[in-house]
Amino acid sequence: MAYERSNIRRMAGYTWGEQPEDPGACKLNTNENPYPPAPGVAAALEGIDAADLRTYPQPTAAPLRTKIAEHHELAKENVLITHGGDEALRLAITTFIEPGSPLGCANPSYSLYPVLAGIQNAPVLQVEYGEDWTLPADFAHRANAAGSRLTCVVNPHAPSGRLMSADDCARLATELDGVLLLDEAYANFIDPALGYDSAPLVKAHDNLLILRSFSKGYSLAGLRLGYLIGQQALIEPLLTKTRDSYNIDAISQRLGLAALDDQDYAMDTWRRVRAERSRLNDELARRGLACPPSETNFLLAQVPANAKLSAKALYEALKARGILVRHFDTPRLGDALRISIGTPAQNRRLLKALDDLQGDVPTAR
Amino acid sequence: MAYERSNIRRMAGYTWGEQPEDPGACKLNTNENPYPPAPGVAAALEGIDAADLRTYPQPTAAPLRTKIAEHHELAKENVLITHGGDEALRLAITTFIEPGSPLGCANPSYSLYPVLAGIQNAPVLQVEYGEDWTLPADFAHRANAAGSRLTCVVNPHAPSGRLMSADDCARLATELDGVLLLDEAYANFIDPALGYDSAPLVKAHDNLLILRSFSKGYSLAGLRLGYLIGQQALIEPLLTKTRDSYNIDAISQRLGLAALDDQDYAMDTWRRVRAERSRLNDELARRGLACPPSETNFLLAQVPANAKLSAKALYEALKARGILVRHFDTPRLGDALRISIGTPAQNRRLLKALDDLQGDVPTAR
Repeated sequence: MAYERSNIRRMAGYTWGEQPEDPGACKLNTNENPYPPAPGVAAALEGIDAADLRTYPQPTAAPLRTKIAEHHELAKENVLITHGGDEALRLAITTFIEPGSPLGCANPSYSLYPVLAGIQNAPVLQVEYGEDWTLPADFAHRANAAGSRLTCVVNPHAPSGRLMSADDCARLATELDGVLLLDEAYANFIDPALGYDSAPLVKAHDNLLILRSFSKGYSLAGLRLGYLIGQQALIEPLLTKTRDSYNIDAISQRLGLAALDDQDYAMDTWRRVRAERSRLNDELARRGLACPPSETNFLLAQVPANAKLSAKALYEALKARGILVRHFDTPRLGDALRISIGTPAQNRRLLKALDDLQGDVPTAR
Repeated sequence: MAYERSNIRRMAGYTWGEQPEDPGACKLNTNENPYPPAPGVAAALEGIDAADLRTYPQPTAAPLRTKIAEHHELAKENVLITHGGDEALRLAITTFIEPGSPLGCANPSYSLYPVLAGIQNAPVLQVEYGEDWTLPADFAHRANAAGSRLTCVVNPHAPSGRLMSADDCARLATELDGVLLLDEAYANFIDPALGYDSAPLVKAHDNLLILRSFSKGYSLAGLRLGYLIGQQALIEPLLTKTRDSYNIDAISQRLGLAALDDQDYAMDTWRRVRAERSRLNDELARRGLACPPSETNFLLAQVPANAKLSAKALYEALKARGILVRHFDTPRLGDALRISIGTPAQNRRLLKALDDLQGDVPTAR
């Protein structure tokens, strides 16, 4: 006999990115930062006394909350620390989405959104991105018409890498009747020359939540640490009611502080990723694999129809050579590969493999 | 404007146990193990390379899952690792309780149960414990009549400490139409002479989930690590659908393994807690503060009506002396104090403070 609720029985779970057994594999499939966390994080880890793990952690991760608030020039009441960005998404859906009422999404996007909506027994409004990976002008109108009380938009977008301007984010928040959750998991990799900063927007918009993560920007995917910023009235029910009561363990609280303290180190990893992103983008284009302009730590390489190998075949052939990239077998993404920016050596290995596999550079652009 | 769902707006959140600022405080209010985690845990912590935190953790905590399965002589398919016991409770409610359909509970019990039910917009069937802290004989009948698809019973019971036999657990699982979640957060402190072992019951009962925690038994409350055991059909939807996709961080996976590896150390802390429990029980009784027989790491001290200080006044007076115990201001528990078993020195300090506060030992029993 099945005891789970019927919506749980019907839904499909999340599919993780592959984790290769071979430690020598070139892992460019889950958008991890190719550089290790800051030396200060290693030092903080060494400084932790196991005896301190005996007691419960500080329930709200208060010191980390305060530090992040300062970082964004906000108050600690505007910040909620979460167990990875995934917890932030789950809490937003649990708190704002009534079962049966739709979660607003743009398609394609983070494949976890529909899974979390499925758990809440909520349908998903899937609005298609335009050809150039911009949101259609009537996106908010359609979300409002569907009665959506929460809309999740990843910015810069995954898997295209395209950045929506802060002005457009503000406009979207104004237009939406419900809450706008801007999922900025990749925002640390935006070119600073663009001057993108959405954090001040939370002061003007009572329906705006911004998600950040330590996973990519601070090289701490293994730790599960993220946060939300927003007005206190939005943060409060998540903080005091819907999150697990001790959601951040004592070690993560310490290492998160250390990661933020070593901001120069983190910024240097972002600079290096951007430099490699630019170089890899050009090298892929030279090989006929054009990518939309990316402000993330990955590129979405379009495999032309006349290429020797299809995107799926290329994915398999790279995997056979120990190089993992991500292929999504969907109508919109089936002819593309999402490639995380690796170290220069990893990126060279990828390009070399592509040259071996594709033979002559195709003339198609 | 409030954006949260109306049930979230109406509900009250969980109240954490106090965390004293004074490091010299005697903290006997949140049932932490008074002894530090095993030396092997400290060694494992020292052995962790911060660089390994760059990548996502193993998504199902597979090695820890296998180890726990072996520990209980089950298969890894019978085990789900959770971010503290609290995540296990949340997942069970999310997975098995339809909004509007009641969570079965016995009252008083863990105050988180009604909070988690409130998030799911589910009412709570609160069946009162008997005077001797046993479940009424018609408990399952009432849960079934109410249509409960999930019933949570903490065993040994909190806050009384009373143990229900494995035979009674089996009978309850047989009688209940829905899932029985046995919350064994304190089970490590059961006297081994009693031979209590509920794990084999999951083989015979397709509706039984057993929750265990590393917080108390393994002195790792700061880490947030727990697990569920049950038949694969019960574990599977929680594992593959409702839990966050990377719910256990890389460090917790390593330290959990180390804690289990040093079983002799953990068992020694349990033995010491039991010895102190027996001594403290007798000393409290001698002071007129009788406790129900406890198989946990705490005692529920009943303050007699004719005592010099009421339970609440005693709680406040102890707090003023830097000794924290737990007082629940409810009709059933208002005349009692829940006191965690501390180190011998902490327990002596508590008894000394009680002597100072109560003056002559009251003659009431």
